[in-house]
Amino acid sequence: MRARDLLADFPVVALDSPVIDAARLLADQDLPGLIVVGDGGTPFTILPGTQVLRLAVPGYCMEDPALARVVDEAHADAFLRGLDGRTVREALPERPRELPVTDPDATVLELASLMARTRSPLVAVVDDGRLLGAVTLQALLDRVLPA
Amino acid sequence: MRARDLLADFPVVALDSPVIDAARLLADQDLPGLIVVGDGGTPFTILPGTQVLRLAVPGYCMEDPALARVVDEAHADAFLRGLDGRTVREALPERPRELPVTDPDATVLELASLMARTRSPLVAVVDDGRLLGAVTLQALLDRVLPA
Repeated sequence: MRARDLLADFPVVALDSPVIDAARLLADQDLPGLIVVGDGGTPFTILPGTQVLRLAVPGYCMEDPALARVVDEAHADAFLRGLDGRTVREALPERPRELPVTDPDATVLELASLMARTRSPLVAVVDDGRLLGAVTLQALLDRVLPA
Repeated sequence: MRARDLLADFPVVALDSPVIDAARLLADQDLPGLIVVGDGGTPFTILPGTQVLRLAVPGYCMEDPALARVVDEAHADAFLRGLDGRTVREALPERPRELPVTDPDATVLELASLMARTRSPLVAVVDDGRLLGAVTLQALLDRVLPA
């Protein structure tokens, strides 16, 4: 079994996309993160869902989440307004996470090794610089677990 | 909106469960990780899916994933045999990840703050020491994103 047998379309976001669009993709598709592409469509890093929250949550709540409880429920429910006008670029950590990349011929052992080494639950599959899709940890386990 | 309105059942594994069972749960339920409970059922940490792979992948492949390609495809497909007889305890990292825990009254802002601070896409919800379930990042985004 090779990467080409396991890959699936995977949504990408650009660095200058509105981060609220990224949040919608994460919610709709039940994904561990999104692939961020740089100029020219080259996969560049992963945007983990928790990183989107970091942009929306006020600093004092992040330091001490118990303080969040003093905010009344109506305002708490609206905290994602903090994302208005912000871009994916702003949501990325200072040192963006490594996105493992491989080619369609990679074996499942190579895919698993990439995921294990980078602690990323997805590997981008690229052919000649073009992003074909991604292999997720779930897709991999699904196919290699003994029946 | 409060944690009680967002929580869902979440599969748990015990420290001495076979790690292959954990891999099956991850594959079947499309989860970012599993809640590991200690003796007495108290939630203790998260087992991320990539950590299960770390236990199965040979050390030389983890150091250099390109070396995995020298293993022939039939053997590569069977790499999860490395999990035979191993337990969840063995799959946990030396410093287990913090599992954020809250109570059913937590607001969405408190849940988001916990996820952002610990970079965990799930928060365990506990009442009087009993695990009620978990709130996932997806469930949270689903409910708080503006229409």
